[in-house]
Formats: sequence, structure tokens, C-alpha cells
Amino acid sequence: VVQLPNNPSSPTELHRVCLPPKRSTLQKLKHRVADIFFPDNPFHKFNNQTWLKKLILTLEFLFPVFQWGPTYSLKLFRADLISGLTIASLAIPQGISYAKLANLPPIIGLYSSFVPPLIYSILGSSKHLAVGPVSIASLVMGTMLSEVISPTEEPILYLKLAFTSTFFSGVFQAALGFLRLGFVIDFLSKATLIGFMAGAAVIVSLQQLKGLLGMVHFTNQMQIIPVLSSVLKYKNESAKRPKLFWLSAAAPLTSVILSTIIVFAIKPKPQRIPIIGYLPKGLNPPSANMLYFSGAYLGLAIKTGIVSGILALTEGIAVGRTFATLNNYQVDGNKEMMAIGLMNMAGSCSSCYVTTGSFSRSAVNYNAGAKTAISNVVMASAVLITLLFLMPLFHYTPTVILAAIIITAVIGLIDYQAAIHLWKVDKLDFLACVCSFFGVLFVSVPLGLAIAVGISVFKILLHVTRPNTNVLGNIPGTQTYQSLGRYREAMRIPSFLILAIESPIYFANSTYLQERILRWVREEEERLKANNDSIMKCVILDMSAVTAIDTSGIELLGELRKMLERMSLQLVLANPAGNVMEKLHLSKVIESFGSQGLYLTVGEAIADISSSWKAQP
Amino acid sequence: VVQLPNNPSSPTELHRVCLPPKRSTLQKLKHRVADIFFPDNPFHKFNNQTWLKKLILTLEFLFPVFQWGPTYSLKLFRADLISGLTIASLAIPQGISYAKLANLPPIIGLYSSFVPPLIYSILGSSKHLAVGPVSIASLVMGTMLSEVISPTEEPILYLKLAFTSTFFSGVFQAALGFLRLGFVIDFLSKATLIGFMAGAAVIVSLQQLKGLLGMVHFTNQMQIIPVLSSVLKYKNESAKRPKLFWLSAAAPLTSVILSTIIVFAIKPKPQRIPIIGYLPKGLNPPSANMLYFSGAYLGLAIKTGIVSGILALTEGIAVGRTFATLNNYQVDGNKEMMAIGLMNMAGSCSSCYVTTGSFSRSAVNYNAGAKTAISNVVMASAVLITLLFLMPLFHYTPTVILAAIIITAVIGLIDYQAAIHLWKVDKLDFLACVCSFFGVLFVSVPLGLAIAVGISVFKILLHVTRPNTNVLGNIPGTQTYQSLGRYREAMRIPSFLILAIESPIYFANSTYLQERILRWVREEEERLKANNDSIMKCVILDMSAVTAIDTSGIELLGELRKMLERMSLQLVLANPAGNVMEKLHLSKVIESFGSQGLYLTVGEAIADISSSWKAQP
Repeated sequence: VVQLPNNPSSPTELHRVCLPPKRSTLQKLKHRVADIFFPDNPFHKFNNQTWLKKLILTLEFLFPVFQWGPTYSLKLFRADLISGLTIASLAIPQGISYAKLANLPPIIGLYSSFVPPLIYSILGSSKHLAVGPVSIASLVMGTMLSEVISPTEEPILYLKLAFTSTFFSGVFQAALGFLRLGFVIDFLSKATLIGFMAGAAVIVSLQQLKGLLGMVHFTNQMQIIPVLSSVLKYKNESAKRPKLFWLSAAAPLTSVILSTIIVFAIKPKPQRIPIIGYLPKGLNPPSANMLYFSGAYLGLAIKTGIVSGILALTEGIAVGRTFATLNNYQVDGNKEMMAIGLMNMAGSCSSCYVTTGSFSRSAVNYNAGAKTAISNVVMASAVLITLLFLMPLFHYTPTVILAAIIITAVIGLIDYQAAIHLWKVDKLDFLACVCSFFGVLFVSVPLGLAIAVGISVFKILLHVTRPNTNVLGNIPGTQTYQSLGRYREAMRIPSFLILAIESPIYFANSTYLQERILRWVREEEERLKANNDSIMKCVILDMSAVTAIDTSGIELLGELRKMLERMSLQLVLANPAGNVMEKLHLSKVIESFGSQGLYLTVGEAIADISSSWKAQP
Repeated sequence: VVQLPNNPSSPTELHRVCLPPKRSTLQKLKHRVADIFFPDNPFHKFNNQTWLKKLILTLEFLFPVFQWGPTYSLKLFRADLISGLTIASLAIPQGISYAKLANLPPIIGLYSSFVPPLIYSILGSSKHLAVGPVSIASLVMGTMLSEVISPTEEPILYLKLAFTSTFFSGVFQAALGFLRLGFVIDFLSKATLIGFMAGAAVIVSLQQLKGLLGMVHFTNQMQIIPVLSSVLKYKNESAKRPKLFWLSAAAPLTSVILSTIIVFAIKPKPQRIPIIGYLPKGLNPPSANMLYFSGAYLGLAIKTGIVSGILALTEGIAVGRTFATLNNYQVDGNKEMMAIGLMNMAGSCSSCYVTTGSFSRSAVNYNAGAKTAISNVVMASAVLITLLFLMPLFHYTPTVILAAIIITAVIGLIDYQAAIHLWKVDKLDFLACVCSFFGVLFVSVPLGLAIAVGISVFKILLHVTRPNTNVLGNIPGTQTYQSLGRYREAMRIPSFLILAIESPIYFANSTYLQERILRWVREEEERLKANNDSIMKCVILDMSAVTAIDTSGIELLGELRKMLERMSLQLVLANPAGNVMEKLHLSKVIESFGSQGLYLTVGEAIADISSSWKAQP
């Protein structure tokens, strides 16, 4: 009664389903731990090397400067010099502006463009990363700290907390790298970051209208409602005394120089055009004594450090990986985290706030032809000269030019095309993006991020909780079984129902899968009855995509077999994965399936079972 | 140069990889929502029915009593009568004991064995569930409430809070069912529950030593350290005045009757043997006026209600499903939740505390031959007679017998064999079990549960974050490609590296997968070099187990293709799942793979690509 697919190569030989090679619990644990913490096997170069070579490799591993240092040439230096000077011309005005974004004195931004790049050039493994303050981390630190401490009323405490946050940022970053927990930042998906950056950019742009429009009664809070109401309030004021400065987006340094010259030439009354004012000359003063390890605000400093640290890491690692991919070298995420962390720890002791690899300056660095981390050294040298000799020149720089620079920088973070792409390709990714955007805009930075990460995790759980199941059919002329809904040419095999389960079987979905499979069986029986077809005798579960199983899942398979047996249906498993097979074996559930309960492929299962039916009609 | 597997049936015909049928966003959303909330398609019977039939089906759906009521017979009633009386003999002593476990007056336990079973018999769809107070929910409610309110010092407030918690329990349970969010309880995996119940049993047993040993200075707190220190303190006291009562585990009712007779005969001084004392005769008094919807303890009542409600649900649904499976009928989890929820809401207005289907009594019910929910009605009638006429008989029942009943009941919850099975089969499930055990023992009930659920979710995330990847080889004589590590007979195909990815590709693993795949490529190249083999030309990703992809995953595939291209390697995808294919198509990434970048099977990919190499050497 059973018709086999018309297939010349239908298998007559059966293949045994193998268990994976036996390993002890300890071996499994070791393998699992290695795979969790050392997926890239960073020490593979150390295999079969002499003692001396191992020492050199260790040095190279700890200080990547030893990898490229010995072969450094004048030609490379020429490239690094040009790119270093180029990014310096960006780093100086951006440093001053971003410090302002973090509600810190402008000079801190320059300090932060001096020490950290030098340290990174020794420890970092990226050749193109331009290190310094970045907008996202600056604004997050500025927002989180100024929600509790006013930077104008208690400037010293605020500065102390900023350095302390930077220190904890560094500790957190270095610890993530050292413990090889770098995958933590993977949970900030790109979709989340697109939404987050756009939300942050909107907030910052609105906030910077304060500087740009010369407003005084402007709130410093981040949430959009107070910001918007301030803008609306301003509109009434500006009607009375119009003093609007609007500058087109010129190159930052040019606009700084030009505006400084103009203001210097006009010398307006101090209230009319706010200027940076006096800046001290000289190198970074030590600030280790300003770190703050006790008292009421320690928790705030740690929280701010972790949030701004994780965002700084995300930007730095992503930028490093991007340019490494473009140039076909690899960046070890965990090692980079240690480099960035150590650089921030050192920075917090030398009057720097949180720094990382900046996306915009790294792109300029790359396009200007940077070859090694020496371009960071060149940039730091240019900043050094500025710090030592050129500080008085910034006295008359109007603060509105800094606001313009910030807005120009953050507007670029709004990537609406990426958001449209997300909507087209993946609705749930788009949802994470939108939630992250509105969370940051209307709630707060840490909560907005937490909501977005929560949605991303929820998405993973949803896929596991409600996995796809498909009815398969044979593609004529092959041994391939594919979804009937997707492949029109796929043919049902009479008397068989072939179901593919597209997810691991866990506690979270075993009840669902039981109901869903029984529903498929019920619907198939109704269909057969309606069509007056031959009855169903066997249900084959294609386990190819069941990549893991837990004890609830094993129990489900056992229960399902019994339930189907009571309905006179045989349950057969096809192609279980290695660890699934191992657990079925350990739990002894597989024994209850008998000799005709487990096959390597769906095709072999059908051939063997239907031939046994022919033998015993 | 390329040798194909020695296979007579090597495919010459290529099969196109199809997209799933086109559906609009709205259709997809509808399908997804239906699959999330109505996986069992509960309304399938309603299709193609007349208006009258639909009305009857609706009634049957809302009140399952209409399903079995019309065919109820005297024969069925005889079976239900016997089983109902049997469970009543358990329910009366257990009701009194469990009320004590919840620090409530004993009579509340009897009230709770009267109203809820009657309501369940109308609304419930399980034929074997014996409804009433249960140990876990009782002890959780008792613990959580008595941590804040003393049941001895403020008995009225405590009682009010217990009824209010029961009300919120019911609301929460009914809401979960009504909103079809029943899958929430699936997240309490069996492994978690095994650990939780064992931990709770240890705590309760130690706590009940108070009653059993007649101790007075015994703490009421749940955590093991105060409990243990109380036991140790008692040891010193008991040395002075020995009054140990230890009874073997006899059938509860027999022991209650015997002990009551003995105590009645001896009539000892009141302090010597604590007895239940006066119990009011009569039916459940209304308690709707005792519900507490405002004030300081509302939060506590809601929290207690939700935690005890979810545990009650878990037990009730699991028991219902177990006996349904044994008897080949299906229980709709969401509908059961509504029944249990409504029964608790009604209970809270008639002096009952939280009830559900009891595992032990349901098992007795089933074994005593219960056929329908009428056995619950019989039990309720027996409780009614007790309430109306027999209450004075319990006056002299010693409270130690109640402690003995509780200990006997909860000791049975310690399923160490199940824990050993977990250890053998799944180490991470065992970890969840152990954490749940120690969390409940040393931290607190809600936190212990939260930790265990966290570990279970972490396990799912870990599997996604660090998925398995395998190198595949051909099993000679077939078109099947299997893991080289698992199948010794599997053969590598020269010039090809075939990798299987065993998980969806998400933001959480795209970085890992990139590193891991590049490591496989690097290791394969090293192996080839060491063996002086022919060079690798093509990497095939077997996507059979990649059941989903997000925008980060799509980007990974695009990046990987470019990186491998720079290494003169071709990247080919084989057998992507429907929704993966759809997203690759939407994002246009698939176009960059070209005509030789996508195949239905690994076998077809190898055949086609190697024949094209032969054509252009």
C-alpha cells in the first residue's frame, strides 16, 4: 500500500546514528569553558614553540607594539605623520567640545586627548583607532552625573566624580577583557545602538541649542519634555532680544580659528557672546588624589562608570573591528578591552575622563592613510604642543562654536536609513531600535539601554518558546525532504507525517511543542479523512535543527511516543544532533523507541519502515 | 584535481532554493500572534458549524461540565463517589494542616476544601484533579506574609492579607489564562521545581519540628540559619524536659482520629500537649469585606499573591496535564488557568485561601478510580458535613499530628533520584535545580525562584551565544554530510571546508561565529599545509540548523563572504531555512553571493562547484 518516492537512489543500506566520542564530565567542561572564553584560541601561536620564542610571543601578545615596532620604517612614519596631524586638527576642537558635553572644563578634553592615545599606542592592537573623548560616552557621563550633582554649583565634587567614574569605567573594561567576558557587549545589538545613538543625538542637539542660541534658562536634564519646554520658552524670549548665531558646518578647526579671530577682533561685552575664557597652560596634572572611594556618591560614580564604560567599549571595539576587517587583520576583542580599560585607569589618574576609539576620527585617520598606532602618538604630540604653548589662543573661542561642533558630530549619529533597513528586514530588530530610541529620549540612558537589551533577549527567548514546525515532503528525484509550504514540488509520503522542529527542545517550549505536534497530527488526520486517503501510520520527527535538548525536552519525546502509540502511530526520530543523541542515550529514553525508532536520515527511515510494513502486511 | 565522493547517485540536477510564500507584514504578524497565543488552535471545532452548534460549543468551551454532564451515568457516579470519599479522608486532615502551614486558623483549610472544588467541577477540564489547599502554596504564603506581619500578634490583619493575596492570586491566574500567557509558567522548568520543592520541604520539615517536638522558642522565619539555630537551641531545652512525640507516618485520617481519641481520653493539662481547640461549626462565612485594597500592605499582598499563585498554577497545571496524558485526553492550559483563577477569586470572598490541584490527592483520586470532576463534588459534600456537624470532634486533635502530616507530605517532595537523573543527563539543569534548592534554603522563596529561572534563561542564552559548529564530511555511498568528529566513516571532500552552524545567527553570536569560522578556516589551512594536501578553495556553510537570523547575522554573512574572498576562498550557503532565506533576500545580501553561492543541499553545492572548476581549470 505504501508508495515510495520514485527515486532510483532510494537507500537500501541503513546507517547507524552515532554517539559523539565519549568524554568525561571534566573534559566536556574544559571544552565548554574554552569555547566560551577562548573561542578564537588566542594562544594557538604558542603551540610547539621554543622557550625563547614563547617569551617573545608573550611580549608581543601583551604589548602589540612589539609586533609592528621592529619593522617600522620611515615610509610608514610619513603616512602616520600626515594622518596624525589630520586627526589632531579634529581632536583639539572636539576634545574641548566633548568635555563641555560632559559638563567638564574644556581643558579636560585636551588632557584626555594626550595621555590615553599614548598608552593605547603601546597596548592596542588596532592600527587605525584614533583614541580620545567621544560624544556618546561624554554625554552619558555628563547626564548621569549632573542628574545628581550640579557641575556649576559643586564643580570640584563633579570633577572628582568624573575622574572616579572614569577609573571605574577602566576597571570594568579591563576586567571584562581580563575575564574574557567580552561577549557581554555583543548584547548591545547594532539595532539597539542605532536607536540609542539617534535618541542621544536628538537630546544632545536640543540641549546644545542652549549654547547655539545663547539661551540661559535652559534645563540641563536629558529628558525630552523639559528640553522641549525650554526650547518653547526660549522662542518667546528670542522674539524680544534677537541674538541668533548660526554657523554652517565647516571643518571644526577652521570654524574655531575663524570664530576666535572674529570674537577677538570684535571684543564684545562678556554677556553678549559667551567665550571659553582663561585656560591654564601646561601638561596634565596628576589626579589620583581626586579619586573618590567612599561616601554617598560612590554608587553613582560606579554606575556612571559602568554605563559610560560599556558604551565606550562598544564604540571602540566596533570601530576597531570595522577597520581591521577592511584591512584583513584581526583585533582580539578581549585584549582591546584590556587596552582601553588600562588606558582609562591611567587616564583617571592624569586628569582625563573616559576615552575610547572615536568612530569619526578613526575614519578620518584611515582615509588620511594611517598605517600604525604611531598616528596616535603624532596626534598626542600635537595636543602636547597645544597644551604647552597654544592655550591662550583659545581664550576668545566662543562657546557657540563648540555647540555647533557637537551638533554636527551627533547629527551624524542619526542613521535613519539603517532604521528603514531594519524595518524592511527584521521587524523585531526595528522594535528594539525604536524602544531604545524612545527609552533614551523619554526615560533615561541606562533604562533605555536596559529596555532595548531586554527586547533583544526577549526576541531570542520568543524564538525558543515558539519555534517553527514544518511538515516536510520529498523533493522528487532526491533524498531531500523540505517544507511543503515552501517547496511546491515537495510531495507527501503516504502513511507518513514528517515534521521538522526548528529549535532546541527546552523546558520553555516542550509544552508548546507537544501541543503543536499533536495539532499537526490531528490536522493531518482530518485532511486524510476529508480526502479519503490511506491512514497515517508513522510520525517522523526530523531533528536536524534540534541543536540541543534538556531534561524537559527528553521527557516530551518520551511522552509523545507514548501518546502517539495509544493513537496507533509510531514515532521515529531522524538525524538527532550529537549532544541530543548523547542525552537521549544517557536518559535511556532512546531505548523505548526500539530498533525502528532512530534513523540517520528521513529517507532511510521511510525506506526501512515501509519495507517492514510490506514484509508484515 | 577534485575527487568527488565515490557515489553513484551524485546529483547532476540542481534544485532551486525557494523563498517561503509571500505574505504581507500584517499576515505575518497575524500568523505569529496566533502561534504565540493560540498554538493549539482551541477554536478549531468551531470551523464550519451552524449557529446553534457554535453556541453549544461555546458553552462547552466555557463550562466543560456541559461536555461530560449530559452523558453522566450511575456507573460513573459510583466510581466518583468512592474516589470522592477517599480524597475527602485525606483532604480534611491535610486542609487543617496546610492552613497551619500558612499560619492560618485550621478551619480556613476546611473552608478552602469546600467552595473551590465545587467551582472547579463546573469550570475545570481535568477529570482527575483533586482541588484544595496544597503544601507549597500554603508554605509560600505563610512565609511571605509572616515575614512582615505576625500571625499571632495581628491575626485579623494577617487573615485579611491572606484573603487579599488569594484574591490577587486568582486575578493573576485568570489573567494569565485569559491573555493566553500560560507559557509564562513553562519558565519554571521541572529542574527548577525539583530543587525548589526539595528546599521548601527541608525548610518546612525543620520548621514543623516546632509542633512535633513541642518547642515554643521556634522561629517562624524561613531561612535555614535561624531555623537550624532554633533546633540547636531546642536541643539544650529538650534535655531538661523530655516530651518528645514521634508518630510513624500512618494514614492521616487514622492518625488524626486515634490521636484525638487518645488525647480526649488522657485530657492532659493544656500546656503539656497543644491541641487545636474550639472550632466554629457552620458553612464558609463571606469574606469579601475582608479584602484589602489600599494601605501599606497592599504591595505585600500582591507580591505574595503572584508568587503563591504562580506556584499553585504550576502544580495544578502540571498535575492536570499528567493525568490527562495518562488517560489520553487534553487539558487546555490557558483554560485551566482561568478555572483555577476564578476559583481562587471566588474562594477569597468565601473565607478560603489559595487552592489548586494537589498532586498527592489527585494521584489518590486517580487510583481510587475517579471518572469526572464529580469526585470533587463528593469530596466537597463530605467537607460540608464535617463543617456542619463534626467540628467539635476536632477539639482534642493534638497539633503535633498536624505537624506530622505536614512533614510526611513535604518529605515526599524531596525527589533526590530526579536530581541524580538531572546530574547524569544535563549538568546545567542540575545547576538550576541546585541553585533553586539553595536559593530557597538560604535566601528566600521569590529570590530563590528568580535565581533558578535566571539560570534557566541563561542556559538558553548561552546556547545561542556560543553555538556549536562542526566540520562535516560525506558519509560514503550517500548524499549525507555529517560531523567528522562524530562519524568516523565520514570523509573530507578535497578543496572544500563544510561547516555546520547549529544555532540561529543573532547579534549575540555573530562576533563569536565570525571568529570561530575564521578559526576553522585557519586550522584547516594549517592541516592542509602540514599534510601537503591540495589547497582549500571553497567554504560551504550548512545552514540547515540556522533556524533564524537577524540583521547582525545577515551582516556577518556579508562580511564573511568579503573576508574569505580576500583569502581567495568562495563562500557558499546550503539549505537556508525559510525565514532566513526571506531575510537574506530582503536585505539583498544574497545577491552578493552570485549564482554559485546558494544551494539546496551540500551535495548539490559540491557537485556543481567542482564541475565548474573542471570546466575552467
